[in-house]
Amino acid sequence: MSTQIFPVRLSAAQQDAAYFHSYNHVGIHEEMIKDRIRTEAYRDAIFAHQEAIKDKVVIDVGCGTGILSIFCAAAGARKVYAVDASDIAVQAREVVKANGFSDVITVIVGRVEEIQLEEKADVIISEWMGYMLLYETMLPSVVCARDRWLKPGGLMLPSFATLYMAPITNPDRYGESIDFWRNVYGFDMSAILPLAKQCAFEEPCVEVITAENVISFPILVKRIDCSTVTLEELETVTTTFSVPSIMRAHLHGFALWFNVSFGGDASSLPKSKAASNGTIPLVLSTAPEDPPTHWAQQTILYVYEPVELQQDNLISGTFTMSQCKENPRFLNVHIEYSCGDRHFVKESVMR
Amino acid sequence: MSTQIFPVRLSAAQQDAAYFHSYNHVGIHEEMIKDRIRTEAYRDAIFAHQEAIKDKVVIDVGCGTGILSIFCAAAGARKVYAVDASDIAVQAREVVKANGFSDVITVIVGRVEEIQLEEKADVIISEWMGYMLLYETMLPSVVCARDRWLKPGGLMLPSFATLYMAPITNPDRYGESIDFWRNVYGFDMSAILPLAKQCAFEEPCVEVITAENVISFPILVKRIDCSTVTLEELETVTTTFSVPSIMRAHLHGFALWFNVSFGGDASSLPKSKAASNGTIPLVLSTAPEDPPTHWAQQTILYVYEPVELQQDNLISGTFTMSQCKENPRFLNVHIEYSCGDRHFVKESVMR
Repeated sequence: MSTQIFPVRLSAAQQDAAYFHSYNHVGIHEEMIKDRIRTEAYRDAIFAHQEAIKDKVVIDVGCGTGILSIFCAAAGARKVYAVDASDIAVQAREVVKANGFSDVITVIVGRVEEIQLEEKADVIISEWMGYMLLYETMLPSVVCARDRWLKPGGLMLPSFATLYMAPITNPDRYGESIDFWRNVYGFDMSAILPLAKQCAFEEPCVEVITAENVISFPILVKRIDCSTVTLEELETVTTTFSVPSIMRAHLHGFALWFNVSFGGDASSLPKSKAASNGTIPLVLSTAPEDPPTHWAQQTILYVYEPVELQQDNLISGTFTMSQCKENPRFLNVHIEYSCGDRHFVKESVMR
Repeated sequence: MSTQIFPVRLSAAQQDAAYFHSYNHVGIHEEMIKDRIRTEAYRDAIFAHQEAIKDKVVIDVGCGTGILSIFCAAAGARKVYAVDASDIAVQAREVVKANGFSDVITVIVGRVEEIQLEEKADVIISEWMGYMLLYETMLPSVVCARDRWLKPGGLMLPSFATLYMAPITNPDRYGESIDFWRNVYGFDMSAILPLAKQCAFEEPCVEVITAENVISFPILVKRIDCSTVTLEELETVTTTFSVPSIMRAHLHGFALWFNVSFGGDASSLPKSKAASNGTIPLVLSTAPEDPPTHWAQQTILYVYEPVELQQDNLISGTFTMSQCKENPRFLNVHIEYSCGDRHFVKESVMR
């Protein structure tokens, strides 16, 4: 035997402490920094907006080890307030010092909702995106920082965020976790199938899929203008959809992915891709057709029973994602969908 | 950002429930069953001991999905008592039924320490091994079952277990997690190194290494005869060692691995390998020179500071592993070691 999983329900009082505590571990920062697609997109965005940053005041919300603040300082910012409620910010302060940026970057260990600054900022930068874009519920902290400390007309980096969804087929994954039980060393263990499906697919799965798994054009779930989005808007996100299957396939679930753009709106682009030539905004994409990131690319809501689809069969329904009452950093996911005259409901919580 | 880690300390009352609850998840059983080296070693051991099993009574301690019990039934056992305190045993009962073994296999959902059987057994089989052999502290349950229910001279499968240790070098791993911080996108983040080392190496790491990482001959830490081992013997395991480095290398830590043998003592073999020809006992090995298993092969105790070694330099010290007072399923690990006139101590807990 071999397990290392000890699941437990946290009390409300432990939730926030546990959240910020999880970012004390250097490994998480190592993983994020080593995600070159993520980190280079931010670096390139900072230098692409050097004119807006040079000699200006920047707030870095959730600065972690301080790498984005250092990029901003290197881009000529007059002052960077690097804020993080996790103890990792203590490390950021040492890093800033070692790189000779102590005069420019002020590291503040605290919640951005509670800090006091001596001045308003020209730019807010933050890497706030979680799985399904909104997991972790960090964007409300960025919105709060914006409303308290950003000058009117100030720059938000990223500027826009867009969440997409699409039905997918994934027979390999389904076979590995489910069909596997039909023949185990010559014995029929399919009695386990109902529990196996529940264990494998009850919660959203963080996995990499590719464009070949996607069986319709993407559905736009939510477009967020970071300069104007309100806290209320983020509590519940819902969309209705009706898309034809582009091929004959088994529907195994729905994938969610996002992109964010720096200085422009990526949702209006013909294809989400990282590019920067002055006219097309710089985009950080986690779409199935783009290379994987540390977000493992997509969050998948698997369905318990695959549905056989013919080409052009409609998949219609409603998708709703809302902050969890039990812990506002978690997400409740509710999807109702129909294929022909068959109707399904899938409820899930991303913890 | 992206995290899904919510660490928390469990109360004593939650520990056992959490342990057995962790085995309710089908994914863990899927992983164990898909480990063909593990599962086929057990299957081969059962059929290699068919003479001892046919028309006899077997107890399967921690039966999980019931696969080992089914192998025993297929090998002709008259009766198999399949015991597990996890709810997965309910599934095992259905699997047994679907395979027509209900008359042979009786599934009991409960702790093996508390069950009542109508008869004594000829054979006890159990897959009780955890990381570093003794993590999870499941062997004491097997010992308890043996003392309560095994006939004198009955067969224990596995029969012997042996824990080995060796100093290792792993410059790639050290570079990835530690040296990485010396140059992060052109900036010096080595201020993070002390915390990075603590985060990366404080706890035992479950990783695959190969024979090339091992820099001495293996040290025998503990040999367990499953027919005679006592509970007291398992509370603390300690060994002293003094081994020469077989090459010039940096010492990065110590690897621990185990093998178990079925029907014979593998620790006396010239080389640990899976084989069965009637004279050599069948061995399930997780050694660096053998193919990886779901135990991820080795448990590594990394040291905070690499030590430069010349060929034939002695590495001497004491290794102690004991059940954790906080949670007896966890392991305290204490290693004191010297290289020349340099002395080091590493304390760790495997949670």
